[in-house]
Amino acid sequence: MSSLTHPNQYHLTRADLLTAMPRLTQGDVESKRAEIKHYFNLTFSTYETLFETLRDDSVFYLRPCSLRHPLIFYFGHTATFFTNKLVLAKLLEARINPHIESMCAIGVDEMSWDDLNDAHYDWPSVEAVRTYRQQVRDAVNRLIDTLDFSLPIDWQSPMWPILMGIEHERIHLETSSVLIRQLPLDKVRSHPLFPVCPDHGDAPKNSLLPVSGGEIHINHQDPADTYGWDNEYGRHDAVVTDFKAAKFLVSNQEYLAFVEAGGYENADYWSEEGNRWRQFTPDKHPTFWVKKAGVKKTGDNNQADWWLRCMTEEIPMPWNWPVEVNFLEADAFCRWKSQQARLPIRLPSEDEYLRLREVSGAMLHPENANHNLQFYASSMPVDRFNHGGFYDVIGNVWQWTQTPIYPFEGFKVHPLYDDFTMPTFDNKHNIFKGGCWISTGNEINGHSRYAFRRHFFQHAGFRYIESAAAVQTEYPTFETDTTAAQHCEFHYGDSYFGVTNFPQAMMQSVVKQLQQDTDLKNRQDLKALEIGCLVGRGCFELAPHVAEVTGLDFSARFINVAEQLKQNGAIRYSIVQEGEIMDFKQRDLADRLKAHAHKCTFLQQDPANLKPIFSGYDLIVATHVMERLHDPKAFLAQLPQRLNAGGLLVIASTYDWQESATNKSRWLGGYKDEHTGENVTSLEGLTALLSAHFEPVGAPRDMPLVIRQSARDYSHQLSQITVWKKRR
Amino acid sequence: MSSLTHPNQYHLTRADLLTAMPRLTQGDVESKRAEIKHYFNLTFSTYETLFETLRDDSVFYLRPCSLRHPLIFYFGHTATFFTNKLVLAKLLEARINPHIESMCAIGVDEMSWDDLNDAHYDWPSVEAVRTYRQQVRDAVNRLIDTLDFSLPIDWQSPMWPILMGIEHERIHLETSSVLIRQLPLDKVRSHPLFPVCPDHGDAPKNSLLPVSGGEIHINHQDPADTYGWDNEYGRHDAVVTDFKAAKFLVSNQEYLAFVEAGGYENADYWSEEGNRWRQFTPDKHPTFWVKKAGVKKTGDNNQADWWLRCMTEEIPMPWNWPVEVNFLEADAFCRWKSQQARLPIRLPSEDEYLRLREVSGAMLHPENANHNLQFYASSMPVDRFNHGGFYDVIGNVWQWTQTPIYPFEGFKVHPLYDDFTMPTFDNKHNIFKGGCWISTGNEINGHSRYAFRRHFFQHAGFRYIESAAAVQTEYPTFETDTTAAQHCEFHYGDSYFGVTNFPQAMMQSVVKQLQQDTDLKNRQDLKALEIGCLVGRGCFELAPHVAEVTGLDFSARFINVAEQLKQNGAIRYSIVQEGEIMDFKQRDLADRLKAHAHKCTFLQQDPANLKPIFSGYDLIVATHVMERLHDPKAFLAQLPQRLNAGGLLVIASTYDWQESATNKSRWLGGYKDEHTGENVTSLEGLTALLSAHFEPVGAPRDMPLVIRQSARDYSHQLSQITVWKKRR
Repeated sequence: MSSLTHPNQYHLTRADLLTAMPRLTQGDVESKRAEIKHYFNLTFSTYETLFETLRDDSVFYLRPCSLRHPLIFYFGHTATFFTNKLVLAKLLEARINPHIESMCAIGVDEMSWDDLNDAHYDWPSVEAVRTYRQQVRDAVNRLIDTLDFSLPIDWQSPMWPILMGIEHERIHLETSSVLIRQLPLDKVRSHPLFPVCPDHGDAPKNSLLPVSGGEIHINHQDPADTYGWDNEYGRHDAVVTDFKAAKFLVSNQEYLAFVEAGGYENADYWSEEGNRWRQFTPDKHPTFWVKKAGVKKTGDNNQADWWLRCMTEEIPMPWNWPVEVNFLEADAFCRWKSQQARLPIRLPSEDEYLRLREVSGAMLHPENANHNLQFYASSMPVDRFNHGGFYDVIGNVWQWTQTPIYPFEGFKVHPLYDDFTMPTFDNKHNIFKGGCWISTGNEINGHSRYAFRRHFFQHAGFRYIESAAAVQTEYPTFETDTTAAQHCEFHYGDSYFGVTNFPQAMMQSVVKQLQQDTDLKNRQDLKALEIGCLVGRGCFELAPHVAEVTGLDFSARFINVAEQLKQNGAIRYSIVQEGEIMDFKQRDLADRLKAHAHKCTFLQQDPANLKPIFSGYDLIVATHVMERLHDPKAFLAQLPQRLNAGGLLVIASTYDWQESATNKSRWLGGYKDEHTGENVTSLEGLTALLSAHFEPVGAPRDMPLVIRQSARDYSHQLSQITVWKKRR
Repeated sequence: MSSLTHPNQYHLTRADLLTAMPRLTQGDVESKRAEIKHYFNLTFSTYETLFETLRDDSVFYLRPCSLRHPLIFYFGHTATFFTNKLVLAKLLEARINPHIESMCAIGVDEMSWDDLNDAHYDWPSVEAVRTYRQQVRDAVNRLIDTLDFSLPIDWQSPMWPILMGIEHERIHLETSSVLIRQLPLDKVRSHPLFPVCPDHGDAPKNSLLPVSGGEIHINHQDPADTYGWDNEYGRHDAVVTDFKAAKFLVSNQEYLAFVEAGGYENADYWSEEGNRWRQFTPDKHPTFWVKKAGVKKTGDNNQADWWLRCMTEEIPMPWNWPVEVNFLEADAFCRWKSQQARLPIRLPSEDEYLRLREVSGAMLHPENANHNLQFYASSMPVDRFNHGGFYDVIGNVWQWTQTPIYPFEGFKVHPLYDDFTMPTFDNKHNIFKGGCWISTGNEINGHSRYAFRRHFFQHAGFRYIESAAAVQTEYPTFETDTTAAQHCEFHYGDSYFGVTNFPQAMMQSVVKQLQQDTDLKNRQDLKALEIGCLVGRGCFELAPHVAEVTGLDFSARFINVAEQLKQNGAIRYSIVQEGEIMDFKQRDLADRLKAHAHKCTFLQQDPANLKPIFSGYDLIVATHVMERLHDPKAFLAQLPQRLNAGGLLVIASTYDWQESATNKSRWLGGYKDEHTGENVTSLEGLTALLSAHFEPVGAPRDMPLVIRQSARDYSHQLSQITVWKKRR
């Protein structure tokens, strides 16, 4: 094992490529330390070995894709990642090579043309990066040797950032193999550790086999048995209905029919996004397919025109290997196929894939799959790995799903890497599953969830299914509007300074009034209205106690959040921690509220100009709304006609009149009366205005509320709740 | 007593005029109820009787002074006051006559010309006001009969607003008598209940008699034995040095010398304000003096030119009566007299008056004074009422002091009348003492403190004293600047939500660090600097533990408050309760801090551009300052050169960087590093910047703070305190 501390090229054997993630909950500290050290060095060496496929050092400065950095960036990047995270975690005191680290930290994703202007970059020499990598390797080894840690290794463990660095490097092992695959062929060379599968021929005929439906129950919590990225954690429950799935991944041969049917030329088969991508892309075939004119071999059919670019070689098209495409191409194939077969053919959802994986038993025999570098540095025929009658349920190539990545219930970002998943919760990054030949470590762990932009190329293909069930392809995105997100936290987030949730506490007191009211108690048909519902918590709290509740707010943004909660039972939002550093939150509607959420209707509506339809209520709650209106007196004056006789009106207000919002002549109080010179409080003004139609119920009640503006800055208010009963 | 419930004119006897305020701490409820009812009706009737001095009802519509309402306003006003306060106190459910009440509520003080345009006023008939007064009288009597109250009667008692109305009416009894005195003579008539003193002649020669100095200790708290206005309550301690006081009030005769010496023409005798008033006023003599050309009586000396206007009569000048002047005239007389006598002649301060009153024993025999309407409806000779060798220490006419009214320690406004005194805390309203012939009730209670604008006329004169002691004539006014007042409350006010005083808690932790520091502990010569001291509490808290402390703030308004506290040990400020309704606060520096306040120096200074002189400190505290600067990095960079080796730097910050204040490139943290892409917290940025010169001391500590914006709106923040020791 110690030989790995300073490996030279070719010192790795094929056996060294075969790894397994350390188990974090089992074993003793010293053997775990040795295991992690071994895993780290294998990972670091394997990554370096991959770059031995470049023909010479000048290739490090080529950009495999016009929108990506040259490979030297990626060569330095995985080491820089270790340094950055270890400095952030205060495990390293100082940077190791600030110059290289400033060059190699940012830019993994596609960038705009501006960012890639080479004039901005003074790339370090390959030798300098090699030296740097060795320094980082030494530093990490020293750290692993000396770290004080205990089992289980959890998110807080000092070992976590080291595991994070390792798994991060294993991701780049794969993505760099894709970049190398995108280099000109004459810039790369074959490598004994990365052989191409020699086995190819005609593809088997695909068919659809039944998959019985069932329930999905995920509850993955820290500490877990193996390292995981933030998006894996949390709860997820779903029901999958029966469907049929293709026996094989779609092979190059099966896909050729789509190409030859003019699939790339027919807009009907493509989504709107797919058509945009299609028009931008010159190729009318999968990206790693190479059409060679004039090299047709005698005796071959016309398929012999096509070759396949592998990582370091071009080979005659292996028709029985899985086709490699992006999501948009896979999706287009399904539409075509659907039309051809007159069947609801489509890509599976993540849940459907998980169901297939479960019924296939694929995870029980990970040695029986083309992944973890255990066979070749390429795909293999689609009919080699039988998983319960299906093939390649895991391994060979990634399998696109229709599901954009979304957070599970209870999602939290890891503080050392808060932008690993967060930026991808945008309904534009689709999950693919199953892993490919070079997927290792966390990538082939059953919990992991990777997602890429839909036009991105990886070693990825697809398996289609037949199902008439709808697939969710739009998930609530993170509310980033500052005010809306603050209100999300206000209604559904943490409590601060020991102040209980305001809309919950307010509605509890409202419900108590309902239950004490001689006219309204025990009635099953109560209609309620909340004006100023913001992001809806008050309405959800009322719903269990009434027949229906309508929430109105001036802001469509807020109504949108409330509607998301009603539809999905969850919201995501980001709120300021400090400056531009955000806290990311996912909150779920409590089960006791979910059950009644269907009674809620949320509508955008100007409280100053309510439509006549909003009437006939037994309860109207006006929450912090009148103090924001130009004319609160007019607002109050039209409430009686909207409320049934004997109904209750509840007003919550902080009475913070601002001349900017409300002309002083319309303030309910907070001034000296121009005739008497006496102070008129808002409660007095309110009482006077309502007295014609209402009797006060009980005494006014002050209720605190806290709105977080940042982790160090809060608005702490005292709202006054008054209850009024409309005379019969 | 029941005859008073519906009195007709002349039903009062002179004996009925002689009243005493009900004692609020003694007796049983029913006899107290009867006593208050009697006192109320006597007051109400006496006030009505006063208006019987008007020749006919048309006179009610005359304005005795161009800047005042006609008398009908005042006739209705005292009844309206009852209604307003009783409605406010929720003791009356509805107004009694909204029209009259809206006319007669506001306008007691001088107003601008605009307000007095008669076209704006549709004054009610005298008969209507009489009817209204009877309705109010009935309502108040019913209330007194039925109110549920207990003894002692305190500020919260439902009986308090009734007593307030009574004493308010007694004030107007006096001020209306002045207005009547200002009417044309042919508009008034004499009245058997208000006879003029027939006794006059030459004045005795005045002289200065010694008054031994002594201490004043006032500690007047609610509940007290008798009704009092807000300004009487609280603590006041003072030391009065020996002085001499005039034996008599200044008589008309003594004042004549000043008039004849051209006193009204010589600017040298007048204060700046006095000169302004003098130029505005045509008269060159006291306002109630009447010069009658051609009515000189044979045998009289040239003094016979002068007559005196009394309330309903003009009489030949009673030279031995006290002269009646405003403060400005009294003050001018003293300057003239001082010059003549080559002695430090001046008006007394309130404290000097109180000392004179005490040593004279005047309060022991209230029957021996011309007040409480017990003799005449006019002044009497200045040598009738001997009070320990002095005369008229109380009674006859009010006696101006040099003291502008200011609040005692612990001053609070009564919620039912928050603008009784507050608007007069402006250094423009001077206290007069002692009462006059028509002063009754609270006016002649030893606790009361009345003040008028210095140019105002009442039945007021003066007694001069001889003293070289300085007199305080400028008191801190109420800080009304919104932000400054919020900071006053933040530093010296109430605690909210259980959060302890922030500057106190912060400096306690700083002092603890000083005491634990091996270099600094036990040193008696420590020099400290606070940057961002706001209104100074932090510096005052540091002072007991260091030799000197300098507080710097960008805002001169804040520094001014800190300086007031240093000088006077107290500040006053008003903060928003609701809308424009304010809470008025007086706060005192705790004795433990007062003793060291002299070590504090407060200076306005831009923290971004500190002068070089601010250096050589052993302790620098930067409180919430860097996050408000354009360049916090530059600010931090210059601190080491201002701090002695081994000295401590303390930084309190909420790290709430705003791009509006600080360009993001100068933020200490709260962003993703542009090279590493990692979150940089402000604490990390701060640590990096300070590491060249400082070692951190202890762990960062979060400390909450609450800034009140209104009674229902607060900014609740968490500040982070870090301590840094400069390397030796």
